Amino acid sequence: MKLGRISVNGPDGAEARLVLVVPEENRVIDLKRALHEQLVKEGSSRESALQYANAVFPGSMSAAIALGTPFTQAAEKINAKRPDAHSISFDSVNWLPASDPSVVRDGLTFVGHIKGFHEKIGAPPTPNLLKVPGYFKGTPHTVIGHEAEVPWPGYIQYMDYELELGYVIGKRAESLRPENALDHLFGITIFNDFSARDCQAVEMPIGMGPTKCKDFAYGIGPWITTVDEFKDLDRIGMEVRVNGETWGKGDSSNKLWTVGELIAWASLGEVIVPGDVIGSGTMGGGSALELDRKLQPGDVVEMIVEGVGTLRNTMGQPIPDLWWPEERKPFM
Amino acid sequence: MKLGRISVNGPDGAEARLVLVVPEENRVIDLKRALHEQLVKEGSSRESALQYANAVFPGSMSAAIALGTPFTQAAEKINAKRPDAHSISFDSVNWLPASDPSVVRDGLTFVGHIKGFHEKIGAPPTPNLLKVPGYFKGTPHTVIGHEAEVPWPGYIQYMDYELELGYVIGKRAESLRPENALDHLFGITIFNDFSARDCQAVEMPIGMGPTKCKDFAYGIGPWITTVDEFKDLDRIGMEVRVNGETWGKGDSSNKLWTVGELIAWASLGEVIVPGDVIGSGTMGGGSALELDRKLQPGDVVEMIVEGVGTLRNTMGQPIPDLWWPEERKPFM
Repeated sequence: MKLGRISVNGPDGAEARLVLVVPEENRVIDLKRALHEQLVKEGSSRESALQYANAVFPGSMSAAIALGTPFTQAAEKINAKRPDAHSISFDSVNWLPASDPSVVRDGLTFVGHIKGFHEKIGAPPTPNLLKVPGYFKGTPHTVIGHEAEVPWPGYIQYMDYELELGYVIGKRAESLRPENALDHLFGITIFNDFSARDCQAVEMPIGMGPTKCKDFAYGIGPWITTVDEFKDLDRIGMEVRVNGETWGKGDSSNKLWTVGELIAWASLGEVIVPGDVIGSGTMGGGSALELDRKLQPGDVVEMIVEGVGTLRNTMGQPIPDLWWPEERKPFM
Repeated sequence: MKLGRISVNGPDGAEARLVLVVPEENRVIDLKRALHEQLVKEGSSRESALQYANAVFPGSMSAAIALGTPFTQAAEKINAKRPDAHSISFDSVNWLPASDPSVVRDGLTFVGHIKGFHEKIGAPPTPNLLKVPGYFKGTPHTVIGHEAEVPWPGYIQYMDYELELGYVIGKRAESLRPENALDHLFGITIFNDFSARDCQAVEMPIGMGPTKCKDFAYGIGPWITTVDEFKDLDRIGMEVRVNGETWGKGDSSNKLWTVGELIAWASLGEVIVPGDVIGSGTMGGGSALELDRKLQPGDVVEMIVEGVGTLRNTMGQPIPDLWWPEERKPFM
């Protein structure tokens, strides 16, 4: 089953809706409207049916996943019928990020990228990468969806993408072990971790993790494919194209840490919640840095993941006149 | 004005309430109940008054601050009268975190701590600390309030506290400049950035920022003092006591970056939202590491900030039997 989020116009302005995605027919089905209609046909009053449909299919994917069985069962029932009514053609859809995570986490699990990245920057990876499945955190406010323009803060000269899988969490959990972590995986989406390489070189030595070099945009979409549709999480085909040209192609094999280990580590001593998205880390060859290339304003970046679809974003124009701090004098 | 959050029992279980705090009388006033009663006295129907009071004083501090004027004006009106009704004595209060931030950010602005920390670890600070006001991000799910027991994941041997101010954001903003950033500051709370020094030594070299060494607990409370009550943000007295003994004392002077610069940087190219808490970074001498000391299970940590109050937490017992990853073999 493929589930997404779109924006529709309502009497109070833009409104988020959950949709069932039918890529082979280039359409989505508005889940709330479909359920509302179905309930009324079955004898519910219009008003009560609407209240129920609002509760089962809220605008938040995180809230829907957190509801659990009433959400997934109602969606599966509509998926089994795939009615024509309440459909919107892909041409007319205004996509929202496939999930609205409470926090963005992004790992570093593909051996190929760790090698490629460190060869390019001319420094060996720290041996601590072998000790724990490191990840960084991103704020949830700059998540963007399919077809969205990517904000480009003007202080960035070296813009890059990162091709990743997004693991969408299905159940609240704390301190999982790898052997039961996959029970908490709801589905897979595509995750584009846009990265400012010049800014990263300033921030990374501080050791507190990326902020300005990452927190301007995380592409999440176009939708989520539920985990039951994947035969093997370590053999998912992945590709990135820039302006139609393939810049990277491979699959999700050759990982330093398994999906279960990454999720278990993310939950260790803390909490992961439904709708959270954990990036797999960049596929080997999944960044332009590894090719000595960079993105330009106006570039169209497409990420294709087998079993999901294509996440497409266009780079915006640099935002001018932003503040930048003045360097301080040494005090030690 | 001092505003906090507490938990009360309701027919559906625990419920969060916003309160006006009157420390000099050791009591809080339930804002929703006080407003409800006031409106009914003024002629509103009980039901409509309750709906309105729910909207003005929700259980979420972030949502209340985001509402803006209707929230602050109603709170100020109750603060002017300070009715006896709907009061709860400090003895009976079950405190919640003073805010429920969308994301935790924590800076590094006090020169004394940067010096003290790097002297102890025997390595010089990176010169990049002089270039930008670095900060790390924490997940919002492990924020704890006044009097809460601090969860102690069993993999931590070297437990520490960090004495900080918490800057609570008042208005949604993007790409502020330092000169107007303070307009977006709602108030000050106390921020205890509990830190696992052993775990930090494993994570920091990876460069993606702290995760397991920080994300188990952030103390935020006991309440928020609105910014109008502070004469000088750079002269706020701060102290930390462990089991009643003073381990660190100083004030909020001697900063590498101003409060305005830290907030502006946090908002640069991204979004800060009401209720977000930005830690000032540790006061010089505000960590046990700087004293070659460490916390033990059962220790009581008190942080006293002039104009706010005392944030008190007791360290829990180590949580046993957690998973820890097996080290990988080198691949480069």
